[in-house]
Amino acid sequence: MSAFSHPDFDAPRFAQGPDARFLPAPADGVLPEEFFSTTNLPTYVRVNGRWRMPREPRMDSALVLDAEGELWVREGRRVRRGELVAVGHAEDGSEGIYVHTAAFLGEPGEGGEFKFMTSEVSREKPIDYGQMARLLVDERERGGYPVWVTGPALVHSRARADMTWFIEQGFVGALLAGNAVAVHDIEASIFGTTLGMTGSGEASSGGHGLHMRAINRVRAAGSIARAVEQGVIRDGIMHACVIHRVPFVLTGSIRDDGPLPEVITDAVAGQDAMRQHAKRATMAILIATALHAIATGNMLPAFVTEADGSLRELATICVDSSEFVVSKLKDRGTHQAFGVVTNAQDFMHILRFYVERELATRAAAAPARRERPDVPAALAQGAP
Amino acid sequence: MSAFSHPDFDAPRFAQGPDARFLPAPADGVLPEEFFSTTNLPTYVRVNGRWRMPREPRMDSALVLDAEGELWVREGRRVRRGELVAVGHAEDGSEGIYVHTAAFLGEPGEGGEFKFMTSEVSREKPIDYGQMARLLVDERERGGYPVWVTGPALVHSRARADMTWFIEQGFVGALLAGNAVAVHDIEASIFGTTLGMTGSGEASSGGHGLHMRAINRVRAAGSIARAVEQGVIRDGIMHACVIHRVPFVLTGSIRDDGPLPEVITDAVAGQDAMRQHAKRATMAILIATALHAIATGNMLPAFVTEADGSLRELATICVDSSEFVVSKLKDRGTHQAFGVVTNAQDFMHILRFYVERELATRAAAAPARRERPDVPAALAQGAP
Amino acid sequence: MSAFSHPDFDAPRFAQGPDARFLPAPADGVLPEEFFSTTNLPTYVRVNGRWRMPREPRMDSALVLDAEGELWVREGRRVRRGELVAVGHAEDGSEGIYVHTAAFLGEPGEGGEFKFMTSEVSREKPIDYGQMARLLVDERERGGYPVWVTGPALVHSRARADMTWFIEQGFVGALLAGNAVAVHDIEASIFGTTLGMTGSGEASSGGHGLHMRAINRVRAAGSIARAVEQGVIRDGIMHACVIHRVPFVLTGSIRDDGPLPEVITDAVAGQDAMRQHAKRATMAILIATALHAIATGNMLPAFVTEADGSLRELATICVDSSEFVVSKLKDRGTHQAFGVVTNAQDFMHILRFYVERELATRAAAAPARRERPDVPAALAQGAP
Amino acid sequence: MSAFSHPDFDAPRFAQGPDARFLPAPADGVLPEEFFSTTNLPTYVRVNGRWRMPREPRMDSALVLDAEGELWVREGRRVRRGELVAVGHAEDGSEGIYVHTAAFLGEPGEGGEFKFMTSEVSREKPIDYGQMARLLVDERERGGYPVWVTGPALVHSRARADMTWFIEQGFVGALLAGNAVAVHDIEASIFGTTLGMTGSGEASSGGHGLHMRAINRVRAAGSIARAVEQGVIRDGIMHACVIHRVPFVLTGSIRDDGPLPEVITDAVAGQDAMRQHAKRATMAILIATALHAIATGNMLPAFVTEADGSLRELATICVDSSEFVVSKLKDRGTHQAFGVVTNAQDFMHILRFYVERELATRAAAAPARRERPDVPAALAQGAP
Repeated sequence: MSAFSHPDFDAPRFAQGPDARFLPAPADGVLPEEFFSTTNLPTYVRVNGRWRMPREPRMDSALVLDAEGELWVREGRRVRRGELVAVGHAEDGSEGIYVHTAAFLGEPGEGGEFKFMTSEVSREKPIDYGQMARLLVDERERGGYPVWVTGPALVHSRARADMTWFIEQGFVGALLAGNAVAVHDIEASIFGTTLGMTGSGEASSGGHGLHMRAINRVRAAGSIARAVEQGVIRDGIMHACVIHRVPFVLTGSIRDDGPLPEVITDAVAGQDAMRQHAKRATMAILIATALHAIATGNMLPAFVTEADGSLRELATICVDSSEFVVSKLKDRGTHQAFGVVTNAQDFMHILRFYVERELATRAAAAPARRERPDVPAALAQGAP
Repeated sequence: MSAFSHPDFDAPRFAQGPDARFLPAPADGVLPEEFFSTTNLPTYVRVNGRWRMPREPRMDSALVLDAEGELWVREGRRVRRGELVAVGHAEDGSEGIYVHTAAFLGEPGEGGEFKFMTSEVSREKPIDYGQMARLLVDERERGGYPVWVTGPALVHSRARADMTWFIEQGFVGALLAGNAVAVHDIEASIFGTTLGMTGSGEASSGGHGLHMRAINRVRAAGSIARAVEQGVIRDGIMHACVIHRVPFVLTGSIRDDGPLPEVITDAVAGQDAMRQHAKRATMAILIATALHAIATGNMLPAFVTEADGSLRELATICVDSSEFVVSKLKDRGTHQAFGVVTNAQDFMHILRFYVERELATRAAAAPARRERPDVPAALAQGAP
Repeated sequence: MSAFSHPDFDAPRFAQGPDARFLPAPADGVLPEEFFSTTNLPTYVRVNGRWRMPREPRMDSALVLDAEGELWVREGRRVRRGELVAVGHAEDGSEGIYVHTAAFLGEPGEGGEFKFMTSEVSREKPIDYGQMARLLVDERERGGYPVWVTGPALVHSRARADMTWFIEQGFVGALLAGNAVAVHDIEASIFGTTLGMTGSGEASSGGHGLHMRAINRVRAAGSIARAVEQGVIRDGIMHACVIHRVPFVLTGSIRDDGPLPEVITDAVAGQDAMRQHAKRATMAILIATALHAIATGNMLPAFVTEADGSLRELATICVDSSEFVVSKLKDRGTHQAFGVVTNAQDFMHILRFYVERELATRAAAAPARRERPDVPAALAQGAP
Repeated sequence: MSAFSHPDFDAPRFAQGPDARFLPAPADGVLPEEFFSTTNLPTYVRVNGRWRMPREPRMDSALVLDAEGELWVREGRRVRRGELVAVGHAEDGSEGIYVHTAAFLGEPGEGGEFKFMTSEVSREKPIDYGQMARLLVDERERGGYPVWVTGPALVHSRARADMTWFIEQGFVGALLAGNAVAVHDIEASIFGTTLGMTGSGEASSGGHGLHMRAINRVRAAGSIARAVEQGVIRDGIMHACVIHRVPFVLTGSIRDDGPLPEVITDAVAGQDAMRQHAKRATMAILIATALHAIATGNMLPAFVTEADGSLRELATICVDSSEFVVSKLKDRGTHQAFGVVTNAQDFMHILRFYVERELATRAAAAPARRERPDVPAALAQGAP
């Protein structure tokens, strides 16, 4: 999660290079043929002899110079006819655009060495929960914006209580998920089951309709928020989001039942809503979801720009039962993702335990510093 | 893929049972509290003393009796205020609704026997390509409507040529997929890569932008169909669909780049479009996609109703690299799915080979029967 | 983990049935052609009109009646020429042998019901650590003999400290493993790495030889036990076994480096050594190993015979990152296995935490009962 | 599968370097403390000013200089007290030992570039069966020694007929497997089942004992070879090996039933027997087995030394249903392995088809060249 420096733009290769070239978009949502396609790495564009970073960085998008001279990274579909779009393929600055890969993908190597255990993602690698806990507590202390992205396995496998705890304790900047996470969470609140499965993992008789009944009750209430107010939903993840005013985005998919009222069924509108949070993200925790994890990875920069202009890696944790999902996320360009190959329930459980311990340690070190007396109490109850 | 009989409704338990009870929906998209939640199995509803099957069966929906006295299975969100909706939980006919599980889920068992190899889905089980080939050729011969549902792995791993062949040869009633399948197929047609990966599996330099360039060209053309006409897209899956007028539905997801013009970005509209094909389906082939497979499974009945009113199982094949996706599909109620745990590329390759052989065998048995001389030619070229 | 009853042998079908038939083995290690092949379920053999249970039950073996009239379950290779071996295929008592499947594999069913989430093994199912912890503590309290069977992933992923703790605290009756578990454990003790991988998951420079150096030091010492005495091995799993006199069996495989001195390189001798512990087992915990888990499953009865002759299920927990290993174990007949699909490191971590809490709870309920003050101390240190 | 050059030993860094240092082994099977631990890469040792390659290269072993001045790579357990063993850790020649990594693990890199699809092993990568077929046919033409290493999934999933074909057609130099492969193959020959599962994947009633009955018959015959002679085994993999005199090594494991008479139950003796074939191997095909694949990978050099002293990569193909096994093999140092993530049955089926086509193509190009008219016949029968 290291910090890193901007390139030295006084070096001759940068100082003497050309400006980037811009061409107008030929139609709404259509880019000039040779548009520069962005990555998620720090990118610098030379405009009038100055190297500048565009705002709202993400991959798979275009560089747009607006009428005010501001530089933006923008999805092709959002570009309007006539807007100026950077063109060129070179990423080394020779055409006025420089992608700062070295900071992330390593300096030129020294040649191979015969080693064991070199694969990037493997269930055989240790998981450093202590470090993840420190990152999360650091984020909370500095007012960061950790974005959590979760799949329904979290709810099925009873990590629901732990996820609720993280929301309640202020560790969740925003929750991005699909309809199913909310449906199963609410089914659990109303009926005590998920997809009709009991808390001990048994398929219940007559259980196949319970998620539909849960959806129907929320639709009758008008919204999740109103269902919370009316006491239809009394605990769990969505309840905690509503009560603690943690923003959530539920995006639709063609597999959804219902859907629930808050679900944004249009994918493009859903992406725009997710992006509002991705832009602010200072950390990302992606749990048990390929679809939403890759969607979020696509719209996240690999780095955070601090208030002072310095950069650091955007800590990105991807949890899944199989190596495949993590590798796939990396194969789609989210190379900064740190993979944890485990069960979502167990991940949440241990992470919570470590966060509680980290909080206790910090509280002990500086007892007067914090207001909320949550931690010792939680520990005393042997919370996990 | 067995046929089966309707229950004997002259039996006392059915003849003397009550009619189903219906209550009006309290609001648009909201069902009466105790609504009957449907399954994908043959279902009979007693109305005015007669047991009848509703139209357009699927799971997770409601039973609606319309003003003309017609019975429908309908998603809750499509029910209007005041429409009559069946209520009750019993599935054994005692409240006027009977779910014919025995046909599908087996008769009462005879108690366990100690056996090996009893798991339902396993890579260790043999795959009967001969039977699948016969099913597909049978479907083509009787004018069936096989629905193919595919994920992008099909394209990455070079099964693209085989999928194209199945479309060209008339084995595909409709293709249901997401934006990514079309994007990678079109990237392959224009640039010869998928996500910048060459046909031999190498990441290409500068390749990360190629799928965005492919999308941009299609957006510039206005639609996939027009890009085919203009020669932008010259081969592949989407090309074959356009040329051979095979309907396709591309539904959006929050992970999409672009998207391509034909993509239906609204999930509810996307479901409605998919359902038009699911309703007509006489077979389903689900390959390398959890999301679209489960979406389709949710809206498919487990059976086909023949013109004469008889029923047979709707042959459903689910192909994935891991047991998990197939088990998940079954865990969501698509119990009739036959799981094939393998690589999508290899599945397509062998299936095509067996279909070619089946066609050759049938052609040899009845040489004058068919018009298209496609098969011997394909075989002669050593097609796979 | 339910108890169950013996069949009622006064019932006519048993009382009037024939005795089992026995034939002499034709040669050493060769059984009569129609030998009865055993299962792991409670089995009763009628000899001289009395239904008796053979000793040392396991699957895939023969029923032998020795000269003293004692009945044994014995592997075919151990049967000597002329020994009397039961013959017949029927398992329902009609040929004098009755396999009591109902107790384990369920009574005759009531016919299918449409349900979700019916798959037996899935990462989407909740894990009840509380129950597993109670079982383990119960076993320790009643002097049971829990057999732990582990693969090397346990060591790579830093569950080593937790495994050591379980040994030290008296929860391990015997440890069954392969050479690799001991090699990596000892490499970790001497060099702080496993296969050259550091505790934070990095491949270390020059690390590929470290496991060979660890093996060489133990070979120089003469044995693991002597390497512990000499201070070559100072902590970890093998150290704890030696110090706390917990028996271990290390069996060889063709993949082994070294091997370490204690490793039994002959597979048949290795099976015999494992079987000594399997026969005494009152619980089995199988973690992150397909080979050793299935080997142990093969030689375990599915039940424990209590001192009073009553039977209960032999609690068998199988932990693996993928559903496949658990399904495979069941497909080889160990149907009683309860599958936990997770990462071995996380499993050990949480299990330990729950055991600590269970101990604390029991200690609080009966403070004077136990001698070892281990638990509160461990908790106070925030042990996991 | 590229050829590559020896280093230039006239370069100053090599010409002026020191000789390697040798120390006597302190005891039988014990190496000097600082022994050099070998890799599977081309290794050069400076003795009396000359750089030489040791014989019988493999990883995880020692460099031994024998009394005749010959250099060997030898497993630590086989070294006798007093034999001279190379010491040192440096692999760059600075201590007289040079490991030629560049040829295999790449030259120093040029720094990262942002790319998609960079993971080494993924089901999403295309499989080039054409190239594998050409390699196999090339091997047969030049009299190579391809070693096949297989797990029992091959037999369960009906790839048995294809494996048999490869043996019959002369593509198998040696077959390395475990007891289970032979047991299930023989069960299939005698009873038509594997572990009691029928060819269509159903668990058969009474089937759980069939593999034990198969073993018993072979034990009664005395050996697999004799069971073939006596007509007990009439087809399949082991039958083909016996009939076509293809050597096989069956090594034991603690999970084995029986075992069959030919099985080498001692792991160390088993390794020695496998190594006899590994030393001669010019290609390796590892299918559906983690244990045997890693065992073989451990004892294979990553390269083949041609008669003229030139070197080429030893083509190593590893087939498994999951990425994990291939990654694990690489994580144990077999970096040259090319991973194919698919089902073993499908792999064998397609590979055979491509080999048949390659043979037909070559036969057409040079019709008089070969004696065996096997290929056109096989194709005419529509063999796969």
